[in-house]
Amino acid sequence: MKLLEDRIRRDGKIKGGDVLKVDSFLNHQMDIRLFGEIGAEFKRRFADVPVSKILTIEASGIGIACIVAQYFDVPVVFAKKNKTKNIAGDAYTTQVESFTHGKTYDIMVSREFLGKGDQVLLIDDFLANGKALEGLARLVRESGAQLAGAGVVIEKGFQPGGDNLRRQGIRLESLAIVDYMDEKTGTIVFRGENP
Amino acid sequence: MKLLEDRIRRDGKIKGGDVLKVDSFLNHQMDIRLFGEIGAEFKRRFADVPVSKILTIEASGIGIACIVAQYFDVPVVFAKKNKTKNIAGDAYTTQVESFTHGKTYDIMVSREFLGKGDQVLLIDDFLANGKALEGLARLVRESGAQLAGAGVVIEKGFQPGGDNLRRQGIRLESLAIVDYMDEKTGTIVFRGENP
Repeated sequence: MKLLEDRIRRDGKIKGGDVLKVDSFLNHQMDIRLFGEIGAEFKRRFADVPVSKILTIEASGIGIACIVAQYFDVPVVFAKKNKTKNIAGDAYTTQVESFTHGKTYDIMVSREFLGKGDQVLLIDDFLANGKALEGLARLVRESGAQLAGAGVVIEKGFQPGGDNLRRQGIRLESLAIVDYMDEKTGTIVFRGENP
Repeated sequence: MKLLEDRIRRDGKIKGGDVLKVDSFLNHQMDIRLFGEIGAEFKRRFADVPVSKILTIEASGIGIACIVAQYFDVPVVFAKKNKTKNIAGDAYTTQVESFTHGKTYDIMVSREFLGKGDQVLLIDDFLANGKALEGLARLVRESGAQLAGAGVVIEKGFQPGGDNLRRQGIRLESLAIVDYMDEKTGTIVFRGENP
């Protein structure tokens, strides 16, 4: 998605440790107009797939998921990362390893909001090692719902998450795939470009 | 907002300890069409106020804030609850006491995304003791931005948060104010209704 790649090149900041900071428009400050374009693009790419629900994970996936959901006219469910009073008992849970934060945490979705008959599209802002999306896919499987696919805004193509998901037969659409980035020169190469 | 009050009465669940569970449409599963109506209503109520940015707090405020932002055509910034690698150093921070979770935590917003010249509307899903909104208002003050007001979807009128904010001179718009609720009978009385 050209508009998004241009934006990443303009406003993204490459930091040591393979970090691509896009917090000026994607995951701290959020450019809602851009999110609208992202929603339209996901709808275009998943036009042939029935979707009854969008599933994402707190926190930074929620905003994009909500705007995307307008294009599919479906509700959003977000998986919670910590057990709170408000979800006791009846939840699907799984463990997710976070490389960014160097720890393992539980994610959960109430059984009320996911089940047989649901056709679930996963939406998230970032895909690196893919552990969060794999966790969401496990929750969908456990619930008996069908996994329609997964849409991510930015995939780090030099990390293994995207390929792992594709190898598992999950239909994955990434709107921008960063295949290479260099902190010193500020170079970013997207998939499909000549480096 | 009649539509919202009806929905709370239909799908809300009153639990012990003054908990009103609305996770089937507001803060776990999210009814995006309802969020659209909420966005239009906030725009109507704050029509006379210049707004250049919406500020909310992770996690459950983000979805509503993003949909509301479409009606104001402004970006959203969400305050983060935990210090992550991606926000080092240059952030406004303050402490917030959570009654629901019984602990105190830090919230923060990068200095890049809030400052003089911004006219900030706070948006959140729930207002009970008001500590989260007070924390956001402090961040706005610290940044030198102007506080345009605060919009919340559900205020628990029998808890002190709303009155505290109004007493501080903050323009607060709550779309549904629950003045009384009873777990045994399932009764909910909204402000303006005869009990």
